[in-house]
Order: sequence, then C-alpha cells, then structure tokens
Amino acid sequence: MSAEYTLVLLRHGESEWNAKNLFTGWVDVDLTEKGREEAVRSGRLMKQEGLLPDVVHTSLLRRAITTANLGLDVADRHWIPVHRSWRLNERHYGALQGLDKAATRDKYGDEQFMLWRRSFDTPPPPIDPDDEFSQAHDPRYAGRDGEMPMTECLKDVVVRMLPYWDSDIVPDLREGQTVLVAAHGNSLRALVKHLDGISDEDIAGLNIPTGIPLLYELDADLRPVTAGGRYLDPEAAAASIQAVANQGKH
Amino acid sequence: MSAEYTLVLLRHGESEWNAKNLFTGWVDVDLTEKGREEAVRSGRLMKQEGLLPDVVHTSLLRRAITTANLGLDVADRHWIPVHRSWRLNERHYGALQGLDKAATRDKYGDEQFMLWRRSFDTPPPPIDPDDEFSQAHDPRYAGRDGEMPMTECLKDVVVRMLPYWDSDIVPDLREGQTVLVAAHGNSLRALVKHLDGISDEDIAGLNIPTGIPLLYELDADLRPVTAGGRYLDPEAAAASIQAVANQGKH
Repeated sequence: MSAEYTLVLLRHGESEWNAKNLFTGWVDVDLTEKGREEAVRSGRLMKQEGLLPDVVHTSLLRRAITTANLGLDVADRHWIPVHRSWRLNERHYGALQGLDKAATRDKYGDEQFMLWRRSFDTPPPPIDPDDEFSQAHDPRYAGRDGEMPMTECLKDVVVRMLPYWDSDIVPDLREGQTVLVAAHGNSLRALVKHLDGISDEDIAGLNIPTGIPLLYELDADLRPVTAGGRYLDPEAAAASIQAVANQGKH
Repeated sequence: MSAEYTLVLLRHGESEWNAKNLFTGWVDVDLTEKGREEAVRSGRLMKQEGLLPDVVHTSLLRRAITTANLGLDVADRHWIPVHRSWRLNERHYGALQGLDKAATRDKYGDEQFMLWRRSFDTPPPPIDPDDEFSQAHDPRYAGRDGEMPMTECLKDVVVRMLPYWDSDIVPDLREGQTVLVAAHGNSLRALVKHLDGISDEDIAGLNIPTGIPLLYELDADLRPVTAGGRYLDPEAAAASIQAVANQGKH
C-alpha cells in the first residue's frame, strides 16, 4: 500500500469548560489561554514537518474554529479555503450539557456515568429545547430543526459525520489536497473508527490528545498506510493519552 | 429605492507596516496590537447594531483574514461560511513594496510620489520576481503566474476585483445573505467606486477608515440606497478621514 492522500486531524485545545470539568457538547465555549497555546503549537508542528494543509474543514463550534485559525496562521496557511459543517461538531451531550462531570457521576453512579461517556450506543437523556444550553434558537442551526440532534451517542456521531466525510472531505483528498480537519474528541474518534476499522467495543479505549496534529497517509482506497496514523509530536501524544487513561482510574 | 440587499465592508486594522510607514501591497504582514483591537471593535459594532453577516469574503492576506476572524468571533459569527480570493487583495505596489514612504517621497519628489499613490491609472514600476517582497514563489498564487500582477494602479484593481464581485459576492447578496467583505484600502475603494459610480478623478479623494464596518444597503439593481453607505461609528470614521486628509497637507 502506498500513500496517495494526506489527511491531518486536529482536536481543539483546552476549552473553558474542559478546564471547569463541565459537559460541553454543542455549547459554544471559548478556548482557554492554554488552549490557544496548544493551537499555536499545532501550527508550529505542521510548519516544522512541512505538512501544509491546502484546505481546512471545521465544525461550527468556536473552539475548533479558533484552533484552526491560530494553527493555520502560525503555519502560514491562513489563506487556504475553509469549509465548515455541523456534522463535524462535538457529540451532543443532551441534558448533560452544562452539568459538572463530578457531580453527575456522584448523582447517577459510576456505571451510568461511564455508559453515557463511553458506550458506543447509549445516548444521555435529550436536552429540553428550552434548556439554556439547547441550540434550539441558535441561528447557525436555523431551518434544520428536524435534522439537529437533541442528544447523541458515539454511534449517532458516526452516522451524521460520515456523509460529510464522503461528500466534502473525500473529494478534496481525491484532488490531491492535503486536508486538515479541525474538530472535536468525539467527531474525530468517529472518523478514526471509520478509517482504522475499529470495532464498536474497542473505540471506547481510544483517546485523541488535544492540539497535536495526527497525520493519516491513506492509500488509493482511503485506507491508512499506517494504522492509527502518526502524531507529529509522538512523545507529547503518548503522555497525553496516558494522563487520560490515569484519570479513568480514579 | 428600497433596501433589498445588505453589504458590509471592513478595512483591516493597523498592520505592522502601516505602523512603520512602509509600502505594503501584497506583502503579507501581520496586524499590530492596535490593529487587533480595531478588529475586535468592528465585531462589537456589528453585534451592537444587530448587523450579523451570513457569509464573509476576504483577501488572501493575513491582515484582512485576521481582522475578519477576530471581528466575527466577537460578533458570534465565527461559524459562517468563508470565501477568499486574491482579487480582494490590496493594490500591488510593485517595486515600491517594502520601501519607506518618506524616503521614497524624498527620492522621487512629491509629484511622482503622489502620482503613484493617488492617480487612477499610473502604476509604480513592476516588482522584480527575484525581489524579496515579490510573491513569485508564494504557494498561494502558484500556477497562476500569467494572471498575477507585478504592479497595479487603482484602475488595475477595479479590473481584477469586479469579476469576483460579479461571480461570487453578488450571488450571495441575491440570495438575501448579509455579506461581509473584509479587505483593504484600495480593493474596497475600487468596490465603492463601482457601487457609488465615483469618477476616476473623484476617487482620489476618498479614504476608507480602518476597522469601522461600512454598511451599504443596496436596491434591487445593486445601487446604494444611500450614496457612500453608512459607517457603524460615524464619529470615529469622520475623525479618521479627517486625520488622513491632514496627513496629505504635510
């Protein structure tokens, strides 16, 4: 298998609600200063590697958009074409959006908590349209009421993300463009699951570190030449993945 | 004439070379901190006015792109579709790019200096492709060698900007979208000349202040309902225009 296409995945840096340990989902919070530094670092890594995107796809959420803006500016690729889609958004966290993670675990217990966080097909309860963290009146989703989720499990993310992969990202790859996808932990996990053919069970154990570009070289059939791709800063990626794994042990 | 379409023009904030008094043109310099503050202010003005872009068109130059990014973020419109074109770039300043404005005036005299700066149809000498400030090896213009200018007068800018207006901006307006154009002093003067039907002579006296959104409501024939449009902060715009006029008297 030889490398035909070049895809770069980038998970946004730390957000204000990451830092506060709240469920975020579709709530459009900003990056923290640390998150902005992660975005800048991602741009430096791409520039050092000579991995220069020709086109970028982002979600509709500020933390991914700003990560792309900052990273591309540092990489001198601020001028490339930009495409955005709600289909790259983070997983919708339903009624849990805005809740404290630790308090939610205490209230519902470890088992339910982990089911909502990590099961492939169990979504949290749906959000109330009148909830302050619902997107019901958000203009970016206007006119698509029936189409927009009120909660999602990872399986739902796969189902709504893949059409965009096929219709918008793959054609850019087929044209020979280096494609950057700036998105979220779960929309990128959904994409990696698809690319690497990871099972519904095994995807639970996969974490993508923030702010470290993940390079996938794909063959003519859009299969990864190297399973799992390659992080541009492998040591930082390994340390970040280990830190997340340790969190799970508490 | 009733307002059918909504167009917002935004000139980028102060750049590093504005601050150093160098001819900039297509050289891709960054905003200064003051320029970034101007960009943020532009977003606040749009938000206060409820003038919310549905789509943005930018040049390929960092100072316009960053101005749009910062302004749209403040206005909560970071998620709108983005289009970019070299046809919205600043006027190419030819061999003058990178030169000190005061030194150039001293060397060539007031008359020649003002001709290059303000005449409608006298371009500066063309830039040498080997000049450090030439875009000859810039990837964003790659594969378009014959099409890219080596110098431009304002007339040249009108000629290369208008096709983009017709092919890309007008269709967005006709769809009823509020369109933001984030660009440069001379690409916006070229557009305003077209919109308001300003003569080749009179356009010399028109200056567009940095960082203040300029609203044009257009009728069904794309003619301004109010000639010259309306700045969202008219006092700041008038003060800025007066300051530029006073500079010319030295």
